[in-house]
Amino acid sequence: VGILGAGGWGTALAILLNSKGYEVCLWEYRPEAAQRLASTRENLEFLPGVKIPPQIEISSDFHWVASGRDIVITAVPSHVLRSVGERLKDVDLRETIIVNVAKGIENQTLMRMSEVLLDTIPELDESRLAVLSGPSHAEEVSRNIPTVVVSASTDIETARKVQHIFMTPNFRVYVNTDVIGVELGGALKNIIAIAAGICDGVGFGDNTKAALLTRGLVEITRLGTAMGANPATFAGLSGMGDLIVTCMSQYSRNRYVGEQIGKGRTLEEVLKGMVMVAEGVRTTKSAYQLAQKYQVEMPITEQVYQVLFQNKNPRVAVSELMCRDAKAESWGF
Amino acid sequence: VGILGAGGWGTALAILLNSKGYEVCLWEYRPEAAQRLASTRENLEFLPGVKIPPQIEISSDFHWVASGRDIVITAVPSHVLRSVGERLKDVDLRETIIVNVAKGIENQTLMRMSEVLLDTIPELDESRLAVLSGPSHAEEVSRNIPTVVVSASTDIETARKVQHIFMTPNFRVYVNTDVIGVELGGALKNIIAIAAGICDGVGFGDNTKAALLTRGLVEITRLGTAMGANPATFAGLSGMGDLIVTCMSQYSRNRYVGEQIGKGRTLEEVLKGMVMVAEGVRTTKSAYQLAQKYQVEMPITEQVYQVLFQNKNPRVAVSELMCRDAKAESWGF
Repeated sequence: VGILGAGGWGTALAILLNSKGYEVCLWEYRPEAAQRLASTRENLEFLPGVKIPPQIEISSDFHWVASGRDIVITAVPSHVLRSVGERLKDVDLRETIIVNVAKGIENQTLMRMSEVLLDTIPELDESRLAVLSGPSHAEEVSRNIPTVVVSASTDIETARKVQHIFMTPNFRVYVNTDVIGVELGGALKNIIAIAAGICDGVGFGDNTKAALLTRGLVEITRLGTAMGANPATFAGLSGMGDLIVTCMSQYSRNRYVGEQIGKGRTLEEVLKGMVMVAEGVRTTKSAYQLAQKYQVEMPITEQVYQVLFQNKNPRVAVSELMCRDAKAESWGF
Repeated sequence: VGILGAGGWGTALAILLNSKGYEVCLWEYRPEAAQRLASTRENLEFLPGVKIPPQIEISSDFHWVASGRDIVITAVPSHVLRSVGERLKDVDLRETIIVNVAKGIENQTLMRMSEVLLDTIPELDESRLAVLSGPSHAEEVSRNIPTVVVSASTDIETARKVQHIFMTPNFRVYVNTDVIGVELGGALKNIIAIAAGICDGVGFGDNTKAALLTRGLVEITRLGTAMGANPATFAGLSGMGDLIVTCMSQYSRNRYVGEQIGKGRTLEEVLKGMVMVAEGVRTTKSAYQLAQKYQVEMPITEQVYQVLFQNKNPRVAVSELMCRDAKAESWGF
């Protein structure tokens, strides 16, 4: 297995697959960082406190990590995936299944992550492409805390192979063939997490956040359905499950960004202080455009967009969400 | 407005309606407690730290509080609702809308709360009966924290009237005509909250809990649909919304019961130390029977039942939930 990206999630998956006896190589793009990881056996930046077993090879040689593998996992930030795909073009992938774990929607093209890979690697067939998604903070998976995720591919056999490869007693994997739904659920939930963080930062309560999550899942489902997803997917692990963990967990960076903004800091200030990527910021831009393109009502996304990029007061934004006309509880998927 | 039951929720709703200018009377069944409430103007047992305005009348005279009101709110524990209904039989309710806020399923009869009221008050027509439900911890509502709930009645006009009566800028009310779904969502979520608490008590993480909530909503939806509810209701405030707040909030008593049991205490010990009612314990019994009656698979409810009433080890129960065969992410509503 070759894992492209030594962030928290890439590292956690390397440890998981190594524990199942697979031969695992992990690609870190900065040579010095790769060397440091290989010698200290701890990812201080992204997964501190977790030991990386000696069997896991760590390298900054992209071609070596990606070539001749049964499985290649792409675990980079979403805005970097295109450049990774372009480097994969030169690798022989005929016998390889690619498992993408990056969550986002590309800004200029509005493509989902699997679309970016298919776009950049002409020889890649979508039957050899899978997505792993669901409520799975790396910090917990690396500590063997029970976790359930979903493996999605348009080819059910590929989804099952990936399920089989990752499954452990504490890491359960369901399968799904709705790649569009699974990818959109994983990406769009980060917007609602920023909104939930704003709620926290402004000083609102659990009632407020629960209402926000509920309405948030409605608008995710609405856009997803317009884009061709199965609405039932959003009631699943990569929709509701991932939304809950991202909005509630102490580990969520997107929630954190919202919280800091709710407390009055600017987006620029907050992002400057973070080593990890908060995918939701970029995803908000894409989703805002997608809502217009598909003519879908997304009031929470719209308010988050205005707060992040148009300096709207966060308290006013939440108040406006609350004060929309009370109407029948219709979901209109 | 007459409010029957001076627990946390009854008291919070009294304060809310008083702030809108309604004349509000609150019934507390113990004469001494009623007197204490009326003089101290604080509900130390159930809503400490919140001032009860002097305009709210507090009495232990059931007939006086219930008679001649436009609205009567039943805000008692679910197992007490039948006796309240029997006392309401002697009250002239021809001009009254009854709003029930108790959440549960009666143990022997397996009736929903509105069915209990209709069963005990022969002259009551369901068009004058509404249910108020959703993610709404009393502690937050009484502090004016933004909250969104749903008013449900088979008669949309009644649902709208109730919406209008309760609505404030910080207490938004949607309407729904699916009384079955709204009642079942409010009742069954307490079982999943006990399971979520067990997860916490055993020391599992956010990933585990998010998966549990996701699968929990699936089994609630499955039973609800079998009982005649609209599945979309469970994606709403009284389904997903209420589930999230009950499983996550520091204020949830059902989550607390599960947590204590997860830490190794017995149900008896835990309940002995609580002044408030954890509705989920009784609801688990009813739902366990309903699952058999409607032949619906409810794995989480079954495990919670075995932990609560058959001394099953909570850690084993959660492990068994995790180790069910991994299958396609099919929800089978």
